[in-house]
Amino acid sequence: MSNTLSSRNLTMLVDFYEYTMANGYFANGMKDTVAYFDMFFRRVPDGGGFAIMAGLEQVIEYLENLSFSEEDLELFRRHGFREDFIQYLKNFKFECDVWAIPEGTPIFPGEPLIKVRGPVIQAQIIETMILLAINHQSLIATKANRIVRAAEGRAIMEFGSRRAQGFDGAIYGARAAYIGGCSGTACVIDERDFGVPALGTMAHSWVQLFGDEYEAFCAYANEYPHDCTLLIDTYNVLKSGLPNAIRAFNDVVVKKGFRPKGVRIDSGDITYLSKKCRKMLDDAGFHDCKIVASNSLDEYIIRDMLIQGAQVDSFGVGERLITASSSPVFGGVYKIVAVEENGVAVPRIKLSENVQKITTPCAKEVWRLYDNWTGKAIADVLTLEGEEIDDSEDYEIFDPDYTWKRKIVTDFTAKKLLEPVFVKGKRVYPCYNINTIKDYCAKQVNTLWDEVKRFENPHKYYVDLSQKLWDEKNEMLKKANVK
Amino acid sequence: MSNTLSSRNLTMLVDFYEYTMANGYFANGMKDTVAYFDMFFRRVPDGGGFAIMAGLEQVIEYLENLSFSEEDLELFRRHGFREDFIQYLKNFKFECDVWAIPEGTPIFPGEPLIKVRGPVIQAQIIETMILLAINHQSLIATKANRIVRAAEGRAIMEFGSRRAQGFDGAIYGARAAYIGGCSGTACVIDERDFGVPALGTMAHSWVQLFGDEYEAFCAYANEYPHDCTLLIDTYNVLKSGLPNAIRAFNDVVVKKGFRPKGVRIDSGDITYLSKKCRKMLDDAGFHDCKIVASNSLDEYIIRDMLIQGAQVDSFGVGERLITASSSPVFGGVYKIVAVEENGVAVPRIKLSENVQKITTPCAKEVWRLYDNWTGKAIADVLTLEGEEIDDSEDYEIFDPDYTWKRKIVTDFTAKKLLEPVFVKGKRVYPCYNINTIKDYCAKQVNTLWDEVKRFENPHKYYVDLSQKLWDEKNEMLKKANVK
Repeated sequence: MSNTLSSRNLTMLVDFYEYTMANGYFANGMKDTVAYFDMFFRRVPDGGGFAIMAGLEQVIEYLENLSFSEEDLELFRRHGFREDFIQYLKNFKFECDVWAIPEGTPIFPGEPLIKVRGPVIQAQIIETMILLAINHQSLIATKANRIVRAAEGRAIMEFGSRRAQGFDGAIYGARAAYIGGCSGTACVIDERDFGVPALGTMAHSWVQLFGDEYEAFCAYANEYPHDCTLLIDTYNVLKSGLPNAIRAFNDVVVKKGFRPKGVRIDSGDITYLSKKCRKMLDDAGFHDCKIVASNSLDEYIIRDMLIQGAQVDSFGVGERLITASSSPVFGGVYKIVAVEENGVAVPRIKLSENVQKITTPCAKEVWRLYDNWTGKAIADVLTLEGEEIDDSEDYEIFDPDYTWKRKIVTDFTAKKLLEPVFVKGKRVYPCYNINTIKDYCAKQVNTLWDEVKRFENPHKYYVDLSQKLWDEKNEMLKKANVK
Repeated sequence: MSNTLSSRNLTMLVDFYEYTMANGYFANGMKDTVAYFDMFFRRVPDGGGFAIMAGLEQVIEYLENLSFSEEDLELFRRHGFREDFIQYLKNFKFECDVWAIPEGTPIFPGEPLIKVRGPVIQAQIIETMILLAINHQSLIATKANRIVRAAEGRAIMEFGSRRAQGFDGAIYGARAAYIGGCSGTACVIDERDFGVPALGTMAHSWVQLFGDEYEAFCAYANEYPHDCTLLIDTYNVLKSGLPNAIRAFNDVVVKKGFRPKGVRIDSGDITYLSKKCRKMLDDAGFHDCKIVASNSLDEYIIRDMLIQGAQVDSFGVGERLITASSSPVFGGVYKIVAVEENGVAVPRIKLSENVQKITTPCAKEVWRLYDNWTGKAIADVLTLEGEEIDDSEDYEIFDPDYTWKRKIVTDFTAKKLLEPVFVKGKRVYPCYNINTIKDYCAKQVNTLWDEVKRFENPHKYYVDLSQKLWDEKNEMLKKANVK
């Protein structure tokens, strides 16, 4: 398997201000100042109840490949950066500690998905790529998971490469979609590089090239009798497409000793057409022939089609999945939360006239509390780093905004979500097989209550602060407001 | 300048069905069958009156690099493709003719943006990447042009890398945004690889690291007195950010003999804050200090801010530009339009129960008619390949749907829009400097009437068919309907 990032140095895919600051930190003698940063997000796309973490493997590959070419250094020289800083970059060695929530985990607003501790210059310059990789793949994995859930067990194929936002939008989008629950992709490079199963049959051009539809179908069936899915909407689904498909199935596929695999409908009123097609296929003795639908689908349309009794066995989903078009931005941010002074982590806070933009200070730990009886996730709790949640005893959680809303959690298991990824710049995290991640995702989504998984008005899952963390934050807010 | 695609072989970034078909064409003795394909789009994003062509250079680089590794061939073998087809791929040599509308040109629904003529296998397998590259960059260039027009001469900086859909979403998105009219980008790699000016100052983390805002500003001003823009919303814009900035400007920048460059506001009610800041800056003697605004902006918000008198000199636009979030899909398609039989191009049509999905058959030419008095574009006309529009005489255009809507065009210049890009697989198209493309774009957008450039309810620009082409299409539709 190729690893598409290891041959690509994306060090310079970075916001310029990271380097204006890095050069400035260097100039101010802060080269060795150690800072903590959290990556987190504020809002679930599409108004959903949770998102899916994805993109971590690409963050890791990027961090392992961080280095500067002479051309890169020359660019910084042209911009007037200090020569000693440029020499520092020339001899750059990544030294940060990094923790992250594993790919495939359901994630919630406000909790650190990635935590970085290290020399502030280093922890700063990796901001852009951490956000870019996690924002993109989490967006698509989240959307894919919604679409997969809407299909209620029917397969979803990712078909969107041509409408993706850039080449990596297609490549890593298909990877994320598979993690989120898609059965495969049309994008061949994803099979080669990640082991995501790729498949596809024919476009309208196949039918048009032959001119005659029946002839085109026979030619295809002759080459692929064992795996024959025909696209039946080039001219007219019910008057020509399906009748010609049934003829070709009988005249070629069955004669060769196989069963036809399916028909695909890519336009028109698919719910209506699929019912008619199902009947015609059944009448022709092809009860086992599947109906595949595509054409600007998403979770809402699929849900609607199924409510109306569409006879569709699997869905090809393109542009609305690969761009998450109904909510195409995953707004992850990366904020400084503490700075070490004489070896002690001193918390930092960002205030804002937008209350939602106020950050939670301190180096933190993220815990998920699971109910021991149901196995369901009850709440996530952020604590101070080093603080423990003892799940052998009852534990009180409370809403950080409305602190009178309290709940005692009993008989639960507390699990730390952040896992070590880099220790002093060295990768300590395994490279998981994509199927392992996909399976883990499905299992973890199953730990969420149905109320959290709803498309409309989902329950707000608790992401609370421990009393100690809440006190720290509140103290800082009070002090800041007095100033 | 690095060329980021030449070191990357994206041959396998392709929909699987292209190869199911290619292998099938091969099996059916159609290896040397010559076909014509058109790439076109059906709808302008955001309900706009026109789009901007972009992404062609990346299509060209991809086509120049088409080749298959042993690993790629092995993948096709695993999928059961014919060994003679795999040998054909092993010795692959691109042989198509390609024509395209230059990057930066305003484009309209229904007209071929790219035309391909060549062996059907080759013309087919390049579909995915042609669509992907053009769809993505045209989407972003179009969005950027809208935002730039909303800002009425104020600079727009592209700031969206962290929210882009994948690494290339950031890289080529920033390239496209520059073509569409942005003044620069935050994305450093775009300066290195394409010559797009990159810039950036500080994040909130700079201010937070120092703890004290004034101290943080002074440290920055000390390092960058000649180019000092300060971010003033970490704590409170009017109570601390701007007062501290003014102190630092006086205490450091002015003392060092420079003038402060700007302040940036990234949250809160920017219209209100900008007016207050303008007054405070003016009162402090810094009339020349610019105000930069960012925070989830787009063309609608910018227009609204300016109507309300926002005192903003330039805008940083992030997620809503880099994902074109209000309309994040550019729906370009690639359709077969003719097949050569005994050296004659025989037209092909795709019907559909969705009337908009019916294609226009035949190998075509695209003409733009410019009024000689105003220099404005009047209409685009699609003709048969080889058909000429003689602009020394009057020319009648008509609406292809409502053919009684007719207009005589007089005193005009007809210009062919499609330019040769590859001849028999060899690139014949120059590699234009990005600034040349950007300037060309601005000039061409100026040839459009204001009514076409409106955001709401723009005039529908004419894209008509010549009488000959219309007759061909109509004849085929009539025949197909009789069947």
